[in-house]
Amino acid sequence: MKLIEIAKFVKGELVGDPDIQISGLAKIQSASNGELTFLANPKYGKYLDSTKASAVLISKKQQSPDINHIRVDDPYLSFLEVLSLLYPVKDPDFDGIHTTAVVADTADIGKNVQIGPNVYIGESVKLGDNSVIFPNCVILDNVQIGENCRFYSRVSIREGCRVGNGVIIHDGTVVGSDGFGFAPDGEKYKKIPQMGIVVIEDDVEIGANSTIDRATIGETIIKKGCKIDNLVQIAHNVEIDANTVIAAQTGISGSTKVGKHVIIAGQVGTVGHIEIGDNAILGAKSGISKNVPAGEMWFGYPAMKIMKQKKIEAYLRRLPEMSKKVNKLIKQLEKLEDKLNLIGGEDER
Amino acid sequence: MKLIEIAKFVKGELVGDPDIQISGLAKIQSASNGELTFLANPKYGKYLDSTKASAVLISKKQQSPDINHIRVDDPYLSFLEVLSLLYPVKDPDFDGIHTTAVVADTADIGKNVQIGPNVYIGESVKLGDNSVIFPNCVILDNVQIGENCRFYSRVSIREGCRVGNGVIIHDGTVVGSDGFGFAPDGEKYKKIPQMGIVVIEDDVEIGANSTIDRATIGETIIKKGCKIDNLVQIAHNVEIDANTVIAAQTGISGSTKVGKHVIIAGQVGTVGHIEIGDNAILGAKSGISKNVPAGEMWFGYPAMKIMKQKKIEAYLRRLPEMSKKVNKLIKQLEKLEDKLNLIGGEDER
Amino acid sequence: MKLIEIAKFVKGELVGDPDIQISGLAKIQSASNGELTFLANPKYGKYLDSTKASAVLISKKQQSPDINHIRVDDPYLSFLEVLSLLYPVKDPDFDGIHTTAVVADTADIGKNVQIGPNVYIGESVKLGDNSVIFPNCVILDNVQIGENCRFYSRVSIREGCRVGNGVIIHDGTVVGSDGFGFAPDGEKYKKIPQMGIVVIEDDVEIGANSTIDRATIGETIIKKGCKIDNLVQIAHNVEIDANTVIAAQTGISGSTKVGKHVIIAGQVGTVGHIEIGDNAILGAKSGISKNVPAGEMWFGYPAMKIMKQKKIEAYLRRLPEMSKKVNKLIKQLEKLEDKLNLIGGEDER
Repeated sequence: MKLIEIAKFVKGELVGDPDIQISGLAKIQSASNGELTFLANPKYGKYLDSTKASAVLISKKQQSPDINHIRVDDPYLSFLEVLSLLYPVKDPDFDGIHTTAVVADTADIGKNVQIGPNVYIGESVKLGDNSVIFPNCVILDNVQIGENCRFYSRVSIREGCRVGNGVIIHDGTVVGSDGFGFAPDGEKYKKIPQMGIVVIEDDVEIGANSTIDRATIGETIIKKGCKIDNLVQIAHNVEIDANTVIAAQTGISGSTKVGKHVIIAGQVGTVGHIEIGDNAILGAKSGISKNVPAGEMWFGYPAMKIMKQKKIEAYLRRLPEMSKKVNKLIKQLEKLEDKLNLIGGEDER
Repeated sequence: MKLIEIAKFVKGELVGDPDIQISGLAKIQSASNGELTFLANPKYGKYLDSTKASAVLISKKQQSPDINHIRVDDPYLSFLEVLSLLYPVKDPDFDGIHTTAVVADTADIGKNVQIGPNVYIGESVKLGDNSVIFPNCVILDNVQIGENCRFYSRVSIREGCRVGNGVIIHDGTVVGSDGFGFAPDGEKYKKIPQMGIVVIEDDVEIGANSTIDRATIGETIIKKGCKIDNLVQIAHNVEIDANTVIAAQTGISGSTKVGKHVIIAGQVGTVGHIEIGDNAILGAKSGISKNVPAGEMWFGYPAMKIMKQKKIEAYLRRLPEMSKKVNKLIKQLEKLEDKLNLIGGEDER
Repeated sequence: MKLIEIAKFVKGELVGDPDIQISGLAKIQSASNGELTFLANPKYGKYLDSTKASAVLISKKQQSPDINHIRVDDPYLSFLEVLSLLYPVKDPDFDGIHTTAVVADTADIGKNVQIGPNVYIGESVKLGDNSVIFPNCVILDNVQIGENCRFYSRVSIREGCRVGNGVIIHDGTVVGSDGFGFAPDGEKYKKIPQMGIVVIEDDVEIGANSTIDRATIGETIIKKGCKIDNLVQIAHNVEIDANTVIAAQTGISGSTKVGKHVIIAGQVGTVGHIEIGDNAILGAKSGISKNVPAGEMWFGYPAMKIMKQKKIEAYLRRLPEMSKKVNKLIKQLEKLEDKLNLIGGEDER
């Protein structure tokens, strides 16, 4: 692709040779001849002079470098757009439904679908047009899956769950496993049947080896546009509202409601039956034991508002010093008492 | 089913129309006509007047509402019993052993078994009567599995492990992977062979994508009636005694012994080679670094007895206040010293 | 095997009957007649008199017990060597490439390879000599795998990733899933294409159900000899240098660099874009939020140098006591002020 074509595609201003051929993309410090790179973070500015890239995407606010460049509003976003253009995600070719896939006769399979080797699709499953199911996935009876979905290898969807359009699920993730519910029965526990389902709305993405449990009754629900990372646990009857982001190894306990556009960092845990308000932010490894109001940023274990937590942490670091102060005070006070007794001894008489 | 039949089934006292037809179950706030609901938690009492349910299970202690109801000792347990009655867990039908399953000739398969598509069952495996193996499970040589077990899709059982009767394992869980054992060998590490097995006793349930490592020598053992959630890690040579419950994302390190009827919340971690006593309770996200005596409740990181931990946390929250007090004391003492020097200045002479 | 043969194999000094037959290995407290055991940890010395083992491996520094024994430098290491000798890890026999495996015509499969049932191997995959792929693994297009590798059941390797020689990967682990990258787009998020790969060098071992994400651009890399446990998350663009050990349920965030020969305990989390120096040690459950210098041991949440952390923890435990001291000081000071006002009241006039 010529540099001028890329400039047009990202609606940027080209400075330099419009006819140069761009054959690939790379980071500024490792780019070579024929490649396009970008400068977004100022700390990488030092590489501008030495980069071997043939052209660079830079911010309109930036001074012009000596090499070919395209001036844009946001160099990183433009770079990603070119990336998606040059390396489109390729659909696999499993000959439509692979001969080794086991698909129930009652399944309703859409047009232009790819179903990989050793996939199992149960009775009355609905699979929408243009969806791709990689090898060794297991989709049980009565599951409904929308259009343009992509399930990577070895995904499980348990019976009756519903998945919207444009949903991406990565390898090994389990949707609809039984919620963890047991009623005490003397020393033993009795299983509480988990009769509900999981509903995943449009444009959700879920990472690898995560687990999303079905509801006891009703639905565990992940709303439109949520993005969930690897090894995340979502318990039964949890509700996660639209466009919330959850990083790896976080766990949300049963019946907790998470608002819209919340950001939850990695390894966070919440107790059950609480509410996390819209636009809240939960810091990494936080242990959330109560409701978090909308828009607040919480952190710590047990978690509290981050300003409060940071303040306490600062005092904590100065605890050895404070202890010294107190011990010094005790000594000074003793001395003072002795002195006072010496001067005004009359009280003791 | 008629309401009177349900009342008899739960041994409750019916107040209202005995002939009403119940076609389903639902939560009190979302139930509709023809459905049975329950009231267990008083905070849902407000829905009693407005619910569209045709009948409600309530506590014998509760005042009678205007709608049809059945009075029972424990409305939630009765509700679960009706739930299990109306929605029994259905066994899948894979035509017995599915044609795409690969089962070794030397495997000993019981009666009335279902083995799903793309399952692999190795040499000399024993599988008891009435057990169900969902698609894409992998069961290696010499594994023994009891009766009435249910392994959901994509479960792995490594060679030689033993599983009792009535065991449920959810999708993606791995039983018998190598323990994490390496001996330093200069800068490198040398693998310590993991020659032991995993033993899972009767009526254990294990969630999705959990991992239970085989022992170095001997057995990693999960005793009768234990309930283990999703994404839990049980390391080599761990012993977990009967009826212990472990919530999601917890990790138990090598050779640790967990007692009977222990409750371990989510995201807990224990070091190796310690003992958790019978009936102990470990709070969410605790980091357990030493033995926990029987019956005690521990919490925190590092964990200690919960009363002690909560006390320290309370002081911690008041740390800024205490710091102010100390600084005020310092100033007051200075003033006092000045004053004293003014009065009894003779010492300084 | 005769005891004298074992003594020669471990280059130890035999004391006792050289012709005794050893048929197995066991722990000192549970060994029976015909078995060899070892004594490494002095706290097990009490079992020396009562063990039913036919012989014991002991340290050269140890006094000679009454039973047959072999004196060696390191009894545990010698025991492991005998263990590996008597119980070699057996390769499975899937008849070479099992008839139910789906292997693309363009795949380049080495000599003496075992590929299990229901495995999928994509276009242009390279698999080296003597490697073993257990059932239901999925290896996508253009993956390169070296010699003498062993992938247990249900491992996924996404397209284009590269794996060295002698690599062991346990059940359910995912290599090359998309990194967690999204650019804000109003209230929604836009997927950032993850175009890079994962590179795993020689002699790495990865546990069960772990996840290693592919780089956005370039490589996520795990260098020679690293040992990674179960349920570990390695994010996109992470670099882990040679011979580093990472215990279960730890998560390393995007673009973080971990040095050589680092030891990371279980359930640790690191933020992204930091560096952990060579030979550093990160204690269990630590939350690492900044660079850790080479050779240092860190602990806690937020983590700091362990000596500092332990000091603060000690002060923390004494916080209730310190609070009492401060309150006592306040009272004493009040009394003192009263007393002083009584004596030297003149100031107040």
